[in-house]
Amino acid sequence: MALNVFLSGEIHTDWREQIMEGAKGLDVTFNSPVTDHDASDDCGVAIMGAEDSKFWHDHKGAKLNAIRTRKGIEDADVVVVRFGEKYKQWNAAFDAGYAAALGKSLIILHGPDHQHALKEVDAAALAVASEPRHVVEILRYVLTGALPG
Amino acid sequence: MALNVFLSGEIHTDWREQIMEGAKGLDVTFNSPVTDHDASDDCGVAIMGAEDSKFWHDHKGAKLNAIRTRKGIEDADVVVVRFGEKYKQWNAAFDAGYAAALGKSLIILHGPDHQHALKEVDAAALAVASEPRHVVEILRYVLTGALPG
Amino acid sequence: MALNVFLSGEIHTDWREQIMEGAKGLDVTFNSPVTDHDASDDCGVAIMGAEDSKFWHDHKGAKLNAIRTRKGIEDADVVVVRFGEKYKQWNAAFDAGYAAALGKSLIILHGPDHQHALKEVDAAALAVASEPRHVVEILRYVLTGALPG
Amino acid sequence: MALNVFLSGEIHTDWREQIMEGAKGLDVTFNSPVTDHDASDDCGVAIMGAEDSKFWHDHKGAKLNAIRTRKGIEDADVVVVRFGEKYKQWNAAFDAGYAAALGKSLIILHGPDHQHALKEVDAAALAVASEPRHVVEILRYVLTGALPG
Amino acid sequence: MALNVFLSGEIHTDWREQIMEGAKGLDVTFNSPVTDHDASDDCGVAIMGAEDSKFWHDHKGAKLNAIRTRKGIEDADVVVVRFGEKYKQWNAAFDAGYAAALGKSLIILHGPDHQHALKEVDAAALAVASEPRHVVEILRYVLTGALPG
Amino acid sequence: MALNVFLSGEIHTDWREQIMEGAKGLDVTFNSPVTDHDASDDCGVAIMGAEDSKFWHDHKGAKLNAIRTRKGIEDADVVVVRFGEKYKQWNAAFDAGYAAALGKSLIILHGPDHQHALKEVDAAALAVASEPRHVVEILRYVLTGALPG
Amino acid sequence: MALNVFLSGEIHTDWREQIMEGAKGLDVTFNSPVTDHDASDDCGVAIMGAEDSKFWHDHKGAKLNAIRTRKGIEDADVVVVRFGEKYKQWNAAFDAGYAAALGKSLIILHGPDHQHALKEVDAAALAVASEPRHVVEILRYVLTGALPG
Amino acid sequence: MALNVFLSGEIHTDWREQIMEGAKGLDVTFNSPVTDHDASDDCGVAIMGAEDSKFWHDHKGAKLNAIRTRKGIEDADVVVVRFGEKYKQWNAAFDAGYAAALGKSLIILHGPDHQHALKEVDAAALAVASEPRHVVEILRYVLTGALPG
Repeated sequence: MALNVFLSGEIHTDWREQIMEGAKGLDVTFNSPVTDHDASDDCGVAIMGAEDSKFWHDHKGAKLNAIRTRKGIEDADVVVVRFGEKYKQWNAAFDAGYAAALGKSLIILHGPDHQHALKEVDAAALAVASEPRHVVEILRYVLTGALPG
Repeated sequence: MALNVFLSGEIHTDWREQIMEGAKGLDVTFNSPVTDHDASDDCGVAIMGAEDSKFWHDHKGAKLNAIRTRKGIEDADVVVVRFGEKYKQWNAAFDAGYAAALGKSLIILHGPDHQHALKEVDAAALAVASEPRHVVEILRYVLTGALPG
Repeated sequence: MALNVFLSGEIHTDWREQIMEGAKGLDVTFNSPVTDHDASDDCGVAIMGAEDSKFWHDHKGAKLNAIRTRKGIEDADVVVVRFGEKYKQWNAAFDAGYAAALGKSLIILHGPDHQHALKEVDAAALAVASEPRHVVEILRYVLTGALPG
Repeated sequence: MALNVFLSGEIHTDWREQIMEGAKGLDVTFNSPVTDHDASDDCGVAIMGAEDSKFWHDHKGAKLNAIRTRKGIEDADVVVVRFGEKYKQWNAAFDAGYAAALGKSLIILHGPDHQHALKEVDAAALAVASEPRHVVEILRYVLTGALPG
Repeated sequence: MALNVFLSGEIHTDWREQIMEGAKGLDVTFNSPVTDHDASDDCGVAIMGAEDSKFWHDHKGAKLNAIRTRKGIEDADVVVVRFGEKYKQWNAAFDAGYAAALGKSLIILHGPDHQHALKEVDAAALAVASEPRHVVEILRYVLTGALPG
Repeated sequence: MALNVFLSGEIHTDWREQIMEGAKGLDVTFNSPVTDHDASDDCGVAIMGAEDSKFWHDHKGAKLNAIRTRKGIEDADVVVVRFGEKYKQWNAAFDAGYAAALGKSLIILHGPDHQHALKEVDAAALAVASEPRHVVEILRYVLTGALPG
Repeated sequence: MALNVFLSGEIHTDWREQIMEGAKGLDVTFNSPVTDHDASDDCGVAIMGAEDSKFWHDHKGAKLNAIRTRKGIEDADVVVVRFGEKYKQWNAAFDAGYAAALGKSLIILHGPDHQHALKEVDAAALAVASEPRHVVEILRYVLTGALPG
Repeated sequence: MALNVFLSGEIHTDWREQIMEGAKGLDVTFNSPVTDHDASDDCGVAIMGAEDSKFWHDHKGAKLNAIRTRKGIEDADVVVVRFGEKYKQWNAAFDAGYAAALGKSLIILHGPDHQHALKEVDAAALAVASEPRHVVEILRYVLTGALPG
């Protein structure tokens, strides 16, 4: 068994790298959205031309990013969505809902402060974890049956 | 043509009532999540018994609410999601993602402050509006072809 | 909002009647498998002719019953599956799996003794309850937002 | 033609090994749930932290196991479900129902004592066999057209 | 519970009338293909203009008939396909395959002479019957639980 | 049997009225896009506010119209698409492709001049007709088996 | 582009070999049902034990063969169904219907005598051919754009 | 991440070659319809025999081409549709609608003259571009996050 895993959500810490590093040796393929914040914001106008309106500037970029995100989620067996400490992160919750509707196995990653606000998202998940290493341990268990320690 | 519309998101203002009032006479069926905040938080333990842990207290309630929300979204032709001024509102973004993955026609309702943070959600929508009356006008146009004033 | 509910599982107590009685006045349509044990066992041969082999006797009947069960589950918004104290009740667990794969909202009803043995089934459910009145209260809450007491 | 086969159900005998050994040389990929009983029971709390309640202890584990089981069934062409002599084995029947609803080819493996209790499960299957070697012979026939003897 | 039943296949005897007569009082909606043989053959050219080639003459008609047949099968809960004594009846077997792939409950109706030739079709069915009254009895049992006699 | 029919395409002649008039007495529900050309062009900005750019002016309107068109096609059993003498009519061909991918029964209506240019669209259809009355006759035949004359 | 092609239908001539020989060098994977008539008839009882009744003898075999046929059709891009001169060949028509409902590209292969009897099957096809070499030429054209001669 | 891209539409300029040349080194698989205009028109009769009627001549060819087009679109992650300066190009718009209904990521490529006529098609797209190099830049960004310049 091999797993295709999409890592959605927060882009300001190295949680993706921690998971990918920890999962070395496991039969997992990881995909992520573009995590370069500026490129992600400006990709639409950088390629297809400037917009006077900020709304359409954002719109063109968000749609380009949707090509990658939808492909990533649709190909995934497992979608991990991390919510960080700051920002609205509505795209993260949107991805979680999108993945849930497609029947993907969801793992939600967040600290205790967000527990109540994320209860609907957590309720759709097969695992709710607080640390990136938990995700590694879940992937290892799912693929090999081995538990930590 | 008749439309089934699910009104998801913010529960602290009377936007749902404005829309339902404005749409009187149109062939629209409206559904909503339970908008009583306390009932929505406590429904799980009130029915199936108390939990020591806040996480599982929330979890039991969120899953009950999911019965209504999924039914509402799956039956809908149009899903309207409103983002208010306050709170994380991750369940609103989750519902938007869920509806998008099912191919529902999405209308997103929010003020100008949230424009950048909601760009991925807006990019999946067929309309982005700022006032409840816009939703009424959209429903009227879609059903009858009549434009405002 | 109206709900279509399929009541699957144990056929030796009056739990279905309790739920239907309790739910009077709610906008719910209930369906069930044929709960006459003898008719359910013998329907195939009674209609299409006797079989020498007990396996094919059972097989013909089980397939006829599947016409009703599949229709009931596929039309349902909510599938309630009750596990009683006795018997293997594999058809109940089969129905739960069938409903889960179709994305139906599952409510599992069982006493505390079966908690460990049913953990995989419970894990797929949106509610796990122990008494028929809990199901009534869930349906009332989902449809009206009203909590017991 | 190559087949992907998921081996679900009883974990106390070596039936999986018999099938995998017998099928050597055939173009079959086998997958199974985690068959280490203790790891399977405790995986949730071992990775994501202890629970006071046995129900939630089980729940966390059952959901982790669901990641593997759903992936295994969804990728499978053929799902083999074995029912042993003991225990409720409701997860096995649940997997059979899940696979049936997804249109997978089902092979059910059980001894004669369970024939009546499994009639609904058997009725959804394309083959009902009593010995692991029958499964090997079925896979060989399906892939090569060769019959035993 | 109500059933939508499509009656496909043989058009030279009154088996449809027997079933519809026998099922009076049951909550069943019946649909059928156009059973007027000449109209069915010539409908395409009668409406859209003559063809020199017999192949395209037939083709235009067969496609018009497909509008009705597909609608009928897609709306059905149960598809009954009767094979008569004569003719190739490939359209009947085609309808059975079409219905099977859509997961419809299939009832196949034929006499003993065709048993071997129809074994693949029968294997996809939930009931194989030899007389129209069997179909009536099946529908009555499925809807009411009552057995004949 | 009743049919839901969506009438897509050319908006400059009274072909829709001819079909609806001719089909009086048949059990058919008709839906159409908004056929008021100006309203259809300007609906987006009329409701949600003006745009400086013609592209986004059009974009907002086209998306609102998509709410109606998708609902109309998804609910339809039969999609009729008429290509007139003038204009590019790419939205008509887009609707035909959309309907074809959803497995709808397609009827294409056009004059002989467009036969070669529409060959791919015609190839996906169950009927290709040149006059609105042909559509009426097709609907009458499909519903009643009666042929013209 | 590569194609997966399932060759269904008549098993008494070497049409499959002609097509596979002719298609050498093209990027096509071919699959077929088991074409050994005796093995195909007896596979069920040979593996899982004898049956007294001819019906169940056939039934057990037909279901085993369905494992291969469904896998073959579901994996296919193109399903070729050949109807020979003799026999009822209802399994061939059943496979064609099954493939049509799944949206597979159908090629039907038959001589002129069967043209009228196969009109409904032909109407669901993207090509109707009379000789195996036509199928080779179609596959070559679809993959490379090259026409014969 | 790798992308499968189908290049549909205009066949009179070298835009496909520009995109494929520009995308060298990216993990993209490109597919296209047959772009030899004469072969595409005549393939049906060249393989399966001449037709007296131009309509059926075209019909046979269009259906053969549909085998390739449907396979190409169904396998694609991204469907690029280019509209040139001339001709009706209804097959291009049909492909865009077909791809949209399947949920494919659409990129529409056209010059400013067609902006109004293509507004419904553009409204279904995730990107609207005017030059082939834009498509290359989009693919590079989606796969690598790198922006031009």
